[in-house]
Amino acid sequence: MSKPLVIDCHGHYTTAPNALGDYREQQKKDVKADPLFEHVKGVIDISDDQIRDSLEGAQLKLQRERGTDVAIFSPRASWMGHHIGNQSTSQYWTEHCNDLIYRITQLYPQNFIGAAQLPQSPKADMQASAQELERCVTELGFVGCNLSPDPSGGHWTAPRLDDPYWYPIYEKMCELDVPAMIHVSASCHHCFDTTGSHYLGADTTAFQHYMMAKTLFKDFPNLKLIIPHGGGAVPYHWGRFRGLADMLKLPPLHEIIKDHIYFDTCVYHQEGIDLLLEVVPTDNILFASEMIGAVRGIDPQTGHYFDDTKRYIDGSKLSEADKRKVFELNTRHVFPRLDARLQEVGLL
Amino acid sequence: MSKPLVIDCHGHYTTAPNALGDYREQQKKDVKADPLFEHVKGVIDISDDQIRDSLEGAQLKLQRERGTDVAIFSPRASWMGHHIGNQSTSQYWTEHCNDLIYRITQLYPQNFIGAAQLPQSPKADMQASAQELERCVTELGFVGCNLSPDPSGGHWTAPRLDDPYWYPIYEKMCELDVPAMIHVSASCHHCFDTTGSHYLGADTTAFQHYMMAKTLFKDFPNLKLIIPHGGGAVPYHWGRFRGLADMLKLPPLHEIIKDHIYFDTCVYHQEGIDLLLEVVPTDNILFASEMIGAVRGIDPQTGHYFDDTKRYIDGSKLSEADKRKVFELNTRHVFPRLDARLQEVGLL
Repeated sequence: MSKPLVIDCHGHYTTAPNALGDYREQQKKDVKADPLFEHVKGVIDISDDQIRDSLEGAQLKLQRERGTDVAIFSPRASWMGHHIGNQSTSQYWTEHCNDLIYRITQLYPQNFIGAAQLPQSPKADMQASAQELERCVTELGFVGCNLSPDPSGGHWTAPRLDDPYWYPIYEKMCELDVPAMIHVSASCHHCFDTTGSHYLGADTTAFQHYMMAKTLFKDFPNLKLIIPHGGGAVPYHWGRFRGLADMLKLPPLHEIIKDHIYFDTCVYHQEGIDLLLEVVPTDNILFASEMIGAVRGIDPQTGHYFDDTKRYIDGSKLSEADKRKVFELNTRHVFPRLDARLQEVGLL
Repeated sequence: MSKPLVIDCHGHYTTAPNALGDYREQQKKDVKADPLFEHVKGVIDISDDQIRDSLEGAQLKLQRERGTDVAIFSPRASWMGHHIGNQSTSQYWTEHCNDLIYRITQLYPQNFIGAAQLPQSPKADMQASAQELERCVTELGFVGCNLSPDPSGGHWTAPRLDDPYWYPIYEKMCELDVPAMIHVSASCHHCFDTTGSHYLGADTTAFQHYMMAKTLFKDFPNLKLIIPHGGGAVPYHWGRFRGLADMLKLPPLHEIIKDHIYFDTCVYHQEGIDLLLEVVPTDNILFASEMIGAVRGIDPQTGHYFDDTKRYIDGSKLSEADKRKVFELNTRHVFPRLDARLQEVGLL
């Protein structure tokens, strides 16, 4: 058996050089002047050294300090901003964001493995997203993607997640054998706060769509979905959802989720992690920290970073065998392309 | 010291006789034909015996079985339906619903104490709600109210909860010395499921509005708000919210909530209640079951009703003194009019 790994399945490139933000600001200006503006991809001038600088003192430093081996790394979630502009806005923005992730996975192949942003757009179908996923997986070596359940940024104008609207991306995911993390981007709704109520509400909403899905998992027996941020409100209300499943005459919750729905461990205190580990079957929990993500400070109660979630798993009552599942084995199972990549870079 | 009480601060009249629903259906027909239809209050013919029948085998039976002394009782939350029709629709519907609660509190004064539905309406200001609250408190003896943060039923078209839009109801609450439970009604949004993602998302959203409020609690030093369903996702993500408060340079979370924000115990499994009791200061937790509410079945894992939340408090590690706070003393503190009413009916 190989050396145990600690795989963080949810990391974002939140520290990109300014040129990336500048490109986005120009896009915003263009679509402000003309909502139907047809962008060209253009060039973003970021050197390898700039990329190294942006990571060395941040994600890489924290990986070393915390003992994380490798992160499944995707573009900054709050910047996906699918609600901005039109299909071509999202298309080129997404390509650049994914290209940067690819460069990172080439510069630090043992530290970062790519997951794709998708060029969703509120008025577009999922074809462009399916194509970009194919490019990222087959050409750039990515192993997963982030799928937003709400490309409108808080208005929830898209159909429910089991609607045929989403089928082209589910088909492509199954064809390529990659899972999706169901992750919203920034809120443009005045009532929802991005990294608090919006993220957690979206996680809960997405879970319930999948829980109530009638034929989705029959249509896609291999579909695998990760609900981030510890599943939003779901594990805390596991009794409520078990009771609702019962009232709706659905199978028991653990059967519904068994081969399809997974929760990450982005819950930033010991008590929350303990609850997650206690109520959700261990096989459905994947280690993650969202690092560097929503909460960047040090918890005065512990003296450690709020998002150093490895400490909470280490400090939990899980057996060593179950910890290994959470840190490594479950993630290798949910991301079927991961093993080949880990072998390629010498981690397996 | 008087005999300890078990006060359920969150009960709904979900078992009303059919005539109530019939009245509502007629209202829906009227506003379907003319959205500006001006209703008259009219009469709903429900006898005292019908009311007794609707409660004896349901809430009263469960109170006796579970050992709850008295419930703060309000109209069925999912039927408030503020998004339906116009101000006059909500006005008369609400008056009838509150009148029924009043009759219940007269028929069973030791079992039920009233809390008001408010005639909110998406395009209306809060004046009618303030007036109805005054009627319910001064004429009907109610001690609290349910305030919906989203009278649009899932579209969240109202301003954030610290906006001056809401000030007339906060002024009236403070003038009358009654708290509000911040409770949405049914979702009319295709993405949000009423008793799951909609309720829990709304609880989380409301909490964050209040957490981030700049001057609200300076403007209303006596304002008291209850976040139902165990606070939505908040206690499970207590670390995240503590970290967000820190990043936003707000006071520590326990200071923000201290005199203003309370969580009920409508969390339907032992692990969830244990987490709530562990992370939230005991003084900010009020016993509640939502009975008869969202989840009506028996948990096959325990053989007891999911919503028999008294069992979970009883089974927790809280000291007896702290249990008494949760079951009784905190609620008497948060509902300042409660003591007089409890004395009047011989419970204190």
